[in-house]
Amino acid sequence: MDLIILAIGTEIIKGRIQDTNSGYIAGRLYSAGFTVREIRCIGDDETLIKKTISDCFSMVEVIIATGGLGPTRDDMTKSAACAFFNSRLILDLELSRKLEKLFRRMDYSSVPELSRSQALVPEGARILPNPRGTASGLLLEKYGKLLFLLPGVPVEMKGLFEEEVLPILCERFGREKLYTAIVRTIGIGESVLAEKIEKGLSEREKTFLSYYPHGGMVDVVVSQPLSGEKAKKPEILKVADHAASQVRDHVYARDEKNLFQVLAEILSTRKLKLALAESCSGGLLSKTITDLDGSSAYFEAGVVSYSNKAKTVFLEVPDKLIAGHGAVSNPVALAMAEGVRKKTGADLSLAITGIAGPSGGSEEKPVGTVIIALSSETGTKAQRFSFGGDREQIRQRSTVKAAEILWRHLTRENR
Amino acid sequence: MDLIILAIGTEIIKGRIQDTNSGYIAGRLYSAGFTVREIRCIGDDETLIKKTISDCFSMVEVIIATGGLGPTRDDMTKSAACAFFNSRLILDLELSRKLEKLFRRMDYSSVPELSRSQALVPEGARILPNPRGTASGLLLEKYGKLLFLLPGVPVEMKGLFEEEVLPILCERFGREKLYTAIVRTIGIGESVLAEKIEKGLSEREKTFLSYYPHGGMVDVVVSQPLSGEKAKKPEILKVADHAASQVRDHVYARDEKNLFQVLAEILSTRKLKLALAESCSGGLLSKTITDLDGSSAYFEAGVVSYSNKAKTVFLEVPDKLIAGHGAVSNPVALAMAEGVRKKTGADLSLAITGIAGPSGGSEEKPVGTVIIALSSETGTKAQRFSFGGDREQIRQRSTVKAAEILWRHLTRENR
Repeated sequence: MDLIILAIGTEIIKGRIQDTNSGYIAGRLYSAGFTVREIRCIGDDETLIKKTISDCFSMVEVIIATGGLGPTRDDMTKSAACAFFNSRLILDLELSRKLEKLFRRMDYSSVPELSRSQALVPEGARILPNPRGTASGLLLEKYGKLLFLLPGVPVEMKGLFEEEVLPILCERFGREKLYTAIVRTIGIGESVLAEKIEKGLSEREKTFLSYYPHGGMVDVVVSQPLSGEKAKKPEILKVADHAASQVRDHVYARDEKNLFQVLAEILSTRKLKLALAESCSGGLLSKTITDLDGSSAYFEAGVVSYSNKAKTVFLEVPDKLIAGHGAVSNPVALAMAEGVRKKTGADLSLAITGIAGPSGGSEEKPVGTVIIALSSETGTKAQRFSFGGDREQIRQRSTVKAAEILWRHLTRENR
Repeated sequence: MDLIILAIGTEIIKGRIQDTNSGYIAGRLYSAGFTVREIRCIGDDETLIKKTISDCFSMVEVIIATGGLGPTRDDMTKSAACAFFNSRLILDLELSRKLEKLFRRMDYSSVPELSRSQALVPEGARILPNPRGTASGLLLEKYGKLLFLLPGVPVEMKGLFEEEVLPILCERFGREKLYTAIVRTIGIGESVLAEKIEKGLSEREKTFLSYYPHGGMVDVVVSQPLSGEKAKKPEILKVADHAASQVRDHVYARDEKNLFQVLAEILSTRKLKLALAESCSGGLLSKTITDLDGSSAYFEAGVVSYSNKAKTVFLEVPDKLIAGHGAVSNPVALAMAEGVRKKTGADLSLAITGIAGPSGGSEEKPVGTVIIALSSETGTKAQRFSFGGDREQIRQRSTVKAAEILWRHLTRENR
């Protein structure tokens, strides 16, 4: 059974808001063994919503729609759904009472008129309770077609999807999971990676491979292709093992863990503490490391030493060193890494200094020049890189490269 | 003239990769006066790609497709386009020579076989040169229909879109821009905002309003609705002025500038320096501030003092204070803000300490408890907040609230 995900919101097709809901739903459905045929985004236009629901139901049995359930006049998903299902909006008294209580608790001086509309539901629809907000999820069902309506606010959508939609789908359409293997690589480009991996594979085996480059890394996913004869688990595993063995020095994970989760595990297990000194990356590395719950176990501190003075005050980088070599130089990167390690007493430290641009470059040190240093009790080393791309990409690549350097240091004996 | 944006990639409908290209293209087309009818995402499936191109061309004259132009076997956009246009792939010799040179310069030991496929183009297609990568853009045109094919790598797609696609579209279909006004607000929820703004507006005027909540802020966009009688510039402006006057204390911009750009302007103009001390936000505020080019003019440094020791070492927060009140407390937030301001000599500083969760909460200080302090030469003040949501949301909301506090401090005399 195929599904279509439908994101509704004029803000999305005007490019003002990024639709992250559809990707989330798609990933969760895929893991649960369902196939998403399409993701569509359309504006808050009642006629177009109705037409799209009708078009999609000519292809699939289930639509999961997000957005347009809010209290303002531009939210018209419910009325469009009513139009398709020949239903009408009625006031759900129980829901209305619940919402009144909620709004009073939220300290509104009066229950806002607009939010009353949140208790209007299509007649015959099943209400999917939303404990995180005021827009309930809804399930409309007729002619063998299922239409789920979820609010567009990501946290509310996620809660409803996990607690209501997915259980309903699994109960109705429960199916065997497709077996998938993953080989996550770093420090090697997509073309060269594919060339190395596909050497020695049959034509059929090659169709199992997909390459997903993201942020300077490439994931190799081995799975049943969208069409063709079904692949069995041993076949998939064999191809994944072959792929990993061909590029052994670049494989950081054989599961869904990202590089930072891999680092987190190693640091936690070995009880090592990490400290950071960032200049051009501006806190991005600290932010990425602390994105993970539990990072306080191994992350000591980060210093975003953007100005030269900050490098001196917090990291004890000598003024003279900066004056003599420039802030973007191997000696300064080394001093930053050593400074932050000494100050915090951490076992390991990374330092990043560079020119993220678009201004600040010179002939000798053009935009994209970045020095990364790693310090540990066995010594401190710095490497110079020249990254392409815009400011955001240079910051991103610096961060990933620093993580790669740390990963190579921590795993050098096992690879 | 309406357009459809088509993102092609199995990785997208499997939820492994977020399609950010379509949102970018949609935003740029909207600003240029074009209307995006739909955004669609489908997998790398030749039959489905061909069918979708055909379906979309029954509705619009122009499709902008991204993805599936890479060198690996799962990239099949070009052959699907050929199938629709009754064309065939031929080797472009000039492009092939260029790519060979490029690969040699990139220090590949041999020009990889796979990448030769990058010089195969549909017969009759116009090649749109891509100086940032190996996959050229392509324009196929027949039966009055235009199909643009762009690579999926965002930086390459953006370059090709700006330098090739948009100029071609504007030349062919150049049209009047729709007038749009924006009122950007902070610190007020969507329902209450809408209630206040819509008071005193006619039914017609209310249809001009759209509300875009994002990261704790709400943008009010005043524009021609998708259907109905055309709105003239003075009408739009009048509604925008009314909206802004109804919620004056929450309006931080009347243009596309975000809150951090507004802060950047104020700090630069007044030659004020800012320093940060972050605990639970883990560097997110530093990262967000340094996302902006030119931030070194006003951003001095940030300390991500994740551990208690880091708070003492870098910010001189007394051990006793932390032991007596806990790291998440008003006295510690005050000491962090004062410490980082004193150390860096900055004019202003912000400190954030809190519990981002999911663990670490207590009855007295549950997950979501965050203290934010602002220090300036006129004194230091701390405020306690209780944010909802998950770890990511709590960190995001802390960051935006800190920025709001700084904005209120800097603009208190003008509002």
